[in-house]
Amino acid sequence: MSSKNKLSRKIDKAILQFSLIEPGDRVLLAVSGGKDSLTLAYHLIHKQKGFPIPFELEAVHIKPDFPNGGDNKSFLGLMEEWDLPCRVIEVPVLERLKPGRKMNCYWCSTQRRMELIRQAEELKCNKIALGHHMDDILETFLMNMAYKGEMSTMLPKLKYDNYPYTVIRPLAYVQESEIISFADAMGFAKIACTCNFDTTSKRHPAREAIDILAIDSSVRDTMFRALSNPNPRYMIGTAESRED
Amino acid sequence: MSSKNKLSRKIDKAILQFSLIEPGDRVLLAVSGGKDSLTLAYHLIHKQKGFPIPFELEAVHIKPDFPNGGDNKSFLGLMEEWDLPCRVIEVPVLERLKPGRKMNCYWCSTQRRMELIRQAEELKCNKIALGHHMDDILETFLMNMAYKGEMSTMLPKLKYDNYPYTVIRPLAYVQESEIISFADAMGFAKIACTCNFDTTSKRHPAREAIDILAIDSSVRDTMFRALSNPNPRYMIGTAESRED
Repeated sequence: MSSKNKLSRKIDKAILQFSLIEPGDRVLLAVSGGKDSLTLAYHLIHKQKGFPIPFELEAVHIKPDFPNGGDNKSFLGLMEEWDLPCRVIEVPVLERLKPGRKMNCYWCSTQRRMELIRQAEELKCNKIALGHHMDDILETFLMNMAYKGEMSTMLPKLKYDNYPYTVIRPLAYVQESEIISFADAMGFAKIACTCNFDTTSKRHPAREAIDILAIDSSVRDTMFRALSNPNPRYMIGTAESRED
Repeated sequence: MSSKNKLSRKIDKAILQFSLIEPGDRVLLAVSGGKDSLTLAYHLIHKQKGFPIPFELEAVHIKPDFPNGGDNKSFLGLMEEWDLPCRVIEVPVLERLKPGRKMNCYWCSTQRRMELIRQAEELKCNKIALGHHMDDILETFLMNMAYKGEMSTMLPKLKYDNYPYTVIRPLAYVQESEIISFADAMGFAKIACTCNFDTTSKRHPAREAIDILAIDSSVRDTMFRALSNPNPRYMIGTAESRED
């Protein structure tokens, strides 16, 4: 199987296993312009044709008021070529900072997320698709353990409590290395999308820790499986392990 | 507080929080002769005097039929000095291997564990105390995730299903670095106890991963807290996260 087909099958697997897309869904795709969201865009666009579940797609790019390293023109052109023109919404993330407050990941992502919700409302979408992949999910798990003291991660599917929208992550089964290969083959690997504020992120040690654990190519899949496979008998403090 | 007292308090915390030692317990201490089990031995011996919970101690060393790098005389002498003479039981771990089978960690630990259970029976002990510390518990968690695909670890307290004995790990809250400092100060840090078969252990990458995640000294404690703190809303595949 070509690596492109393998990637496509993994997206199908996530869609079906986690019921990410259901008949009649209107999906708003959040396109940062980086390799992850473009890979997701490409596959969702192509899946629309002939996919057993009928769904509709919209795309939006949230553009902050600071340089994010991306070249907007080139990915917007790609989206046009792929027949899913991408709406660009400017959000003054920096400008909205209260005086004295420093820019941080939490603030930026909240501002972007609120705008996505507004766009979903305006475009009558019920799902918001994000380009997070398996490595992002594993990294978040380790970060939350090591720095928040809890076991939790990004979910393949998360319904907002206070809004009628569901976030979906169809790349949940796709490893970052597969995305890089795909982006290379498609010629859009060089469209970077990084942020200059991201210098002290705790994501870096988490990423490095996973690289070290991954002594062979199956380890990331195994770790992902573990995320939904607690063994209550051997977990500290569960009812089973407390038994006398 | 001296580091010795801090270590002692952490052992008390584990004993009380996980009900590791209960009134009238007869505890069999498994002494490999390395820094971990000697640290545990020292503290349990000293706790016997004036500890609010009355308990009795026995000590046993399981000696395999291969060189394990340890100098038996020196730690046996220490145990005599500390007034808890250590029974030495020779177990032919290698000799018992079926023809054609290679030596491995699973085989060795099973053989040793069965002998410990036999000794507990003979010495009328109901608890078996092992010298595993916080780093061992965290490493095991990452190993089980990355290589077994499940969330599980060594427990501070585990009652055997088929035997009337409970394994306890009073060093669960103690970091390895604290044990090293203590062993240094006490002068027994050089009593090594390593095994020549342990060349391909998956414990090494897990240990390295924790070192990388531990960007400050509180991270191991935070990770340990996470082990008993799942956030069901953000765990993949739990009832809460499946909600629509």
